[in-house]
Amino acid sequence: MFRNFKMVSKVVYGRGCTAQLGDILNEQRRSSKSVMIFLVDDVFKAGTIDNRLPVHTDDLIVWVNVDDEPKTSYVDQLTTQVKKHMVDKQDHHPSGVIGIGGGSTMDLAKAVSLMLTNAGSSADYQGWDLIKKPAVYHAAVPTLSGTGAEVSRTTVLTGPQKKLGINSDHTVFDQIVLDPEMIANAPNPQRFYTGMDCYIHCVESLEGTYLNNFSQAYGEKAMDLCREVFLTDTEDADDKLMMASYCGGMSIAYSQVGICHALSYGLSFVLGLHHGIGNCVAFDYLEDYYPAGVREFRLMMERQGIDLPRKLTASVTDAQMKTMVDVALVLEPLWENALGKDWKTLMTREKIQQLYLNM
Amino acid sequence: MFRNFKMVSKVVYGRGCTAQLGDILNEQRRSSKSVMIFLVDDVFKAGTIDNRLPVHTDDLIVWVNVDDEPKTSYVDQLTTQVKKHMVDKQDHHPSGVIGIGGGSTMDLAKAVSLMLTNAGSSADYQGWDLIKKPAVYHAAVPTLSGTGAEVSRTTVLTGPQKKLGINSDHTVFDQIVLDPEMIANAPNPQRFYTGMDCYIHCVESLEGTYLNNFSQAYGEKAMDLCREVFLTDTEDADDKLMMASYCGGMSIAYSQVGICHALSYGLSFVLGLHHGIGNCVAFDYLEDYYPAGVREFRLMMERQGIDLPRKLTASVTDAQMKTMVDVALVLEPLWENALGKDWKTLMTREKIQQLYLNM
Repeated sequence: MFRNFKMVSKVVYGRGCTAQLGDILNEQRRSSKSVMIFLVDDVFKAGTIDNRLPVHTDDLIVWVNVDDEPKTSYVDQLTTQVKKHMVDKQDHHPSGVIGIGGGSTMDLAKAVSLMLTNAGSSADYQGWDLIKKPAVYHAAVPTLSGTGAEVSRTTVLTGPQKKLGINSDHTVFDQIVLDPEMIANAPNPQRFYTGMDCYIHCVESLEGTYLNNFSQAYGEKAMDLCREVFLTDTEDADDKLMMASYCGGMSIAYSQVGICHALSYGLSFVLGLHHGIGNCVAFDYLEDYYPAGVREFRLMMERQGIDLPRKLTASVTDAQMKTMVDVALVLEPLWENALGKDWKTLMTREKIQQLYLNM
Repeated sequence: MFRNFKMVSKVVYGRGCTAQLGDILNEQRRSSKSVMIFLVDDVFKAGTIDNRLPVHTDDLIVWVNVDDEPKTSYVDQLTTQVKKHMVDKQDHHPSGVIGIGGGSTMDLAKAVSLMLTNAGSSADYQGWDLIKKPAVYHAAVPTLSGTGAEVSRTTVLTGPQKKLGINSDHTVFDQIVLDPEMIANAPNPQRFYTGMDCYIHCVESLEGTYLNNFSQAYGEKAMDLCREVFLTDTEDADDKLMMASYCGGMSIAYSQVGICHALSYGLSFVLGLHHGIGNCVAFDYLEDYYPAGVREFRLMMERQGIDLPRKLTASVTDAQMKTMVDVALVLEPLWENALGKDWKTLMTREKIQQLYLNM
């Protein structure tokens, strides 16, 4: 059985194409009284981004905070806020939810659009294909590239018990607006860490056991583009990084990430480390498993002037270490993709703990 | 303004995935009495392909003949045949139209699915965005790779006055089933000519003036895959050719073909030459415009043992030649993409006629 991969319905790509967002959303507005909800990363609050958004009178801009990675409790809170906003409006649901930001903001937009039509808490839907009803129309304008969240069928959330996505065809965006100008001002090292999410996930999928030619084609292209962006003086770095992220996300259709992502999930859950930086921290210690990839990654770090944080696990308690190992180990498909069916004989709790202790 | 590109809704890719077609279509069947229409290239009539199709009692298999490229009159005739089949059925429309074949068969499936819901003749809709109503659900199982018809928003038809596609977001397939095993038995030189449709269109779009990074990423990958397929002894030739076609088709989002496709349209219209072979015949005389591409194309021909037909235009009348030049010249965006805004000063009727006379 091969996955029947749900694709984003519409994509517009080009420098300055964010200016088309108004026309695109107008096609979705059911009436002059319809409401759009803009979830915007609050790092933009100080700027003038809201002047560039096609906001109508009854629309709502919600400045979302993603200092922490998205939690199910935050999704539920945002959903309640949107529902309150709709109370005195003509329509029951908004005509659309638009996420403007990086992977975390896009994931929040996906999750809120799902929770507006599906009852209960978002924590109830962490898993695979638990969503029953189509989401409200949802769109994304990425301002950071690398996570692939713009094309994925998941929204990664930290719940009370686990860090796990809401994986569903209904999660996939109806529209993505890929405007390289929107990522031009992303600050380093955040830009680098997010870009490395793409690079590392290509290393893991291309060297994994789950791959087929669809994912290989996308993964190879994403990797080539990452090399151009982070190892050369290409003029089109933003344009290429945006395409690398898109291709990396598409490559996940028939592939799986590996050891680095498994370890990074543990770092995020216990230390609150963001996914991108968590990947970088873990990958630097995985030379035994991905020798060529780790060597090239270090070249990229050097060229981009990145200093990784160190000794992050120096003060974790035994209980925290146990949790970190538990969180990593629960991701069985990742380990199997990396090490094959017999991965349990190759990767012990002790080895994982030792890897974490290095970090 | 950048095109807001409509993507195929769902794609399944993998060796043997045609076996999943039954489950995929069952999700679309509205009831036990719903009807699926299978348009199947009649080259398969002698074989056992119909035993492998998930045909229910009230479904209809139509063996379509694509010895000639699809005509609007043929689309209208097929649409009438489907409507007659539906007369005594519970539903007004079939639940789906599935094209099983190469680019021509896929184009017929697209066109019939559109004409079941849009009144009049398919000739009325040749052009851009003339279709008003969504098509019946339509899916494709390609048995030849290279045209990119599986992902394009057009269905190329020869009408009473012109060869021109029905270009519309509604034309795009709802589902494509990409099974490399289905193209394994495609005969040479047809396999080669169809593959070269992809290669040549990548040369034309990558060297054109309309390109952006989205289309460049896809075009480069399609070209790399064509090289692996036609210039090396790769084991996965079918798998890669299928991905080359998909990537080539996606690359058309923000690019345009060029001189070769313009000339090929004239050859098709007047001589009835199929699009793939028409491209090859024309491309071989375009060394002045695409020197590196033509050189590599000849290497591929040599390696694949292909002999192009020659002297095709030796016996055309003056009136036919005039028509050929007219058909080529009407495709202004192709010439502009190839030669820039001032293309009319660079490309005269005489030059085009001379190119045709060489063929």
